[in-house]
Amino acid sequence: MPPAHPDLSDAPLLRACRGLPASRVPVWFMRQAGRSLPEYRALRGTGSILDAIQDPALSAEITLQPVRRYGVDAAILYSDIVVPAFAIGFGVDVTPGVGPVVAEPFRTKADLDRLRPFEPGDDAPYVAETVRLVVAELGATPLIGFAGAPFTVASYLIEGRPSRTYGLTKAMLHGDPELFGALLDRLADMAIASLLAQVEAGASAIQLFDSWAGALAPDVYRDHVLPASAKVFAALEATGVPRIHFGVGTGELLPLMADAGADVVGVDWRVPLDVARDRLPGKAVQGNLDPAVCLAPWEVVADRTRDVLRRNAGRPGHVFNLGHGVLPELDPGVLAQVVDLVHAEGRADG
Amino acid sequence: MPPAHPDLSDAPLLRACRGLPASRVPVWFMRQAGRSLPEYRALRGTGSILDAIQDPALSAEITLQPVRRYGVDAAILYSDIVVPAFAIGFGVDVTPGVGPVVAEPFRTKADLDRLRPFEPGDDAPYVAETVRLVVAELGATPLIGFAGAPFTVASYLIEGRPSRTYGLTKAMLHGDPELFGALLDRLADMAIASLLAQVEAGASAIQLFDSWAGALAPDVYRDHVLPASAKVFAALEATGVPRIHFGVGTGELLPLMADAGADVVGVDWRVPLDVARDRLPGKAVQGNLDPAVCLAPWEVVADRTRDVLRRNAGRPGHVFNLGHGVLPELDPGVLAQVVDLVHAEGRADG
Repeated sequence: MPPAHPDLSDAPLLRACRGLPASRVPVWFMRQAGRSLPEYRALRGTGSILDAIQDPALSAEITLQPVRRYGVDAAILYSDIVVPAFAIGFGVDVTPGVGPVVAEPFRTKADLDRLRPFEPGDDAPYVAETVRLVVAELGATPLIGFAGAPFTVASYLIEGRPSRTYGLTKAMLHGDPELFGALLDRLADMAIASLLAQVEAGASAIQLFDSWAGALAPDVYRDHVLPASAKVFAALEATGVPRIHFGVGTGELLPLMADAGADVVGVDWRVPLDVARDRLPGKAVQGNLDPAVCLAPWEVVADRTRDVLRRNAGRPGHVFNLGHGVLPELDPGVLAQVVDLVHAEGRADG
Repeated sequence: MPPAHPDLSDAPLLRACRGLPASRVPVWFMRQAGRSLPEYRALRGTGSILDAIQDPALSAEITLQPVRRYGVDAAILYSDIVVPAFAIGFGVDVTPGVGPVVAEPFRTKADLDRLRPFEPGDDAPYVAETVRLVVAELGATPLIGFAGAPFTVASYLIEGRPSRTYGLTKAMLHGDPELFGALLDRLADMAIASLLAQVEAGASAIQLFDSWAGALAPDVYRDHVLPASAKVFAALEATGVPRIHFGVGTGELLPLMADAGADVVGVDWRVPLDVARDRLPGKAVQGNLDPAVCLAPWEVVADRTRDVLRRNAGRPGHVFNLGHGVLPELDPGVLAQVVDLVHAEGRADG
């Protein structure tokens, strides 16, 4: 039976994720869907993202908008890392201007009962439907599916809202490692179910967002967090899709994040890309332009973009991206220029 | 003429800051004054810290409280990094639960006119008076004076409030480096004036808080931030007091922060202390227990405290501290136990 969507094996994104030379340096932007795009704001209005993503036609359109506008080498699903926890009724909302908020945070063993297995087809069928709608429109451009990594999702469930210090999360990690481990294991299973459903529906790569893992000391990460993330990557191996592992402030964690089983490791702007390459032998890398740099005049953005390309020095296995998500106040025109510059000047031939 | 206060040259803190063997591993805690102490809360009530620090008797008492309670090896002045900007009338307040807030943020060249030179004796005589009161009570325990580093203070003046992304700050740094440099140079002069006045009044060491420098890529830090911080350290050299340089998330910046002219470089918990030592040859180090670990049961705190000591391996030039400030929700009893453990088990003899 022929595949339901075009053969994407030559897509620059997928070749780069596999460490292979590509026809150009692929580029996409975390949070490219939504946020700063005027056509997104016009379409969506205000309200929780969790309402919008239950509308597949709307979410598919939001996912496609940046591909049309920027000519990026990948689409990233318009969704949120708390969708599985939301969909099983844990009581999560995403408050505009704040972030994920949990009415009754995870605090004791009894809260494990509130985390039943996530069944994507029953609990959140709109996600796979959005994937199918997007893939049908994308043609030769791959779609990246994603999930929140167990630690980062756990931090929201435990803290109840975004935190700067992760005090409650770390208190549980250190004070009741068994409960913390059980929580992360359940969240790993939920991420696996979500990612497998996205791949089955047509996603060509996946990214695991462990945005806040950089808050941890390396040995704490290794002992208490890595096993759950490794479980996710291992469960995705048989799908054959490239697996990207992302966090910020992870300079000391990069080798461990590779060990977790990722094919590609995200690098924020704190670590120069050539230094990151040295810490990640044999792995592809993704990054690493500071999103705040994109608020500066174009000559500066161009200079910093070229600096990333120069540090990669044409090695295969580089996916150009920001080091973190697009800032809401960004002028989208700047990102279009970045895409053109990376495509024009980036080399991916070794 | 005899010195106005005791000879502190044998104080463990000062010997460690100079890289010399000491009778014990010195320990103090950032934010030990205020925050979590019940005797502090009883004394101060609510309201802006900027009101409290204008009362030398009150501020001296708050500075001394943790020394009495914990038996730490240093006092740190109860004050705030925005004091000079506040004292010259820039329009800064510190909102409880939020942090520094600026009514009219720094945005254009015209705002430079609002940053006249800081004259500690006229603008904030209460700071030196607090130092004198504290030193008169401290006996053989050194007092650490401090100032905000130009970058971190600039980030508050530009953003107008605490930021997660420093978008406006980075936009100015990259978009108008001349103006940004002029701002940092003025803030360097203000920090110098403040620190010299504190040393003159009796502070035995100083710390420059560049808490948010870790938000920058290393070459950006080197080109746009380091010169102003280096100016501060150079101006303090003739005083002979040890100079400590602190920030969080600075793994990639540690060698540059040493290059700025510090005798001691602070290390947060993201970089293991032995790794930090390798990045800082010939420098003393300060840190590096995760403050959030102190919310865990004592056995865990003890284990992580011993891990820091083990990684230092008895080398001289280690000041034990948290990797960032005491968390407000902390049980102060835990810090007392940490002090006892460091004093009992730490070795500082090489």
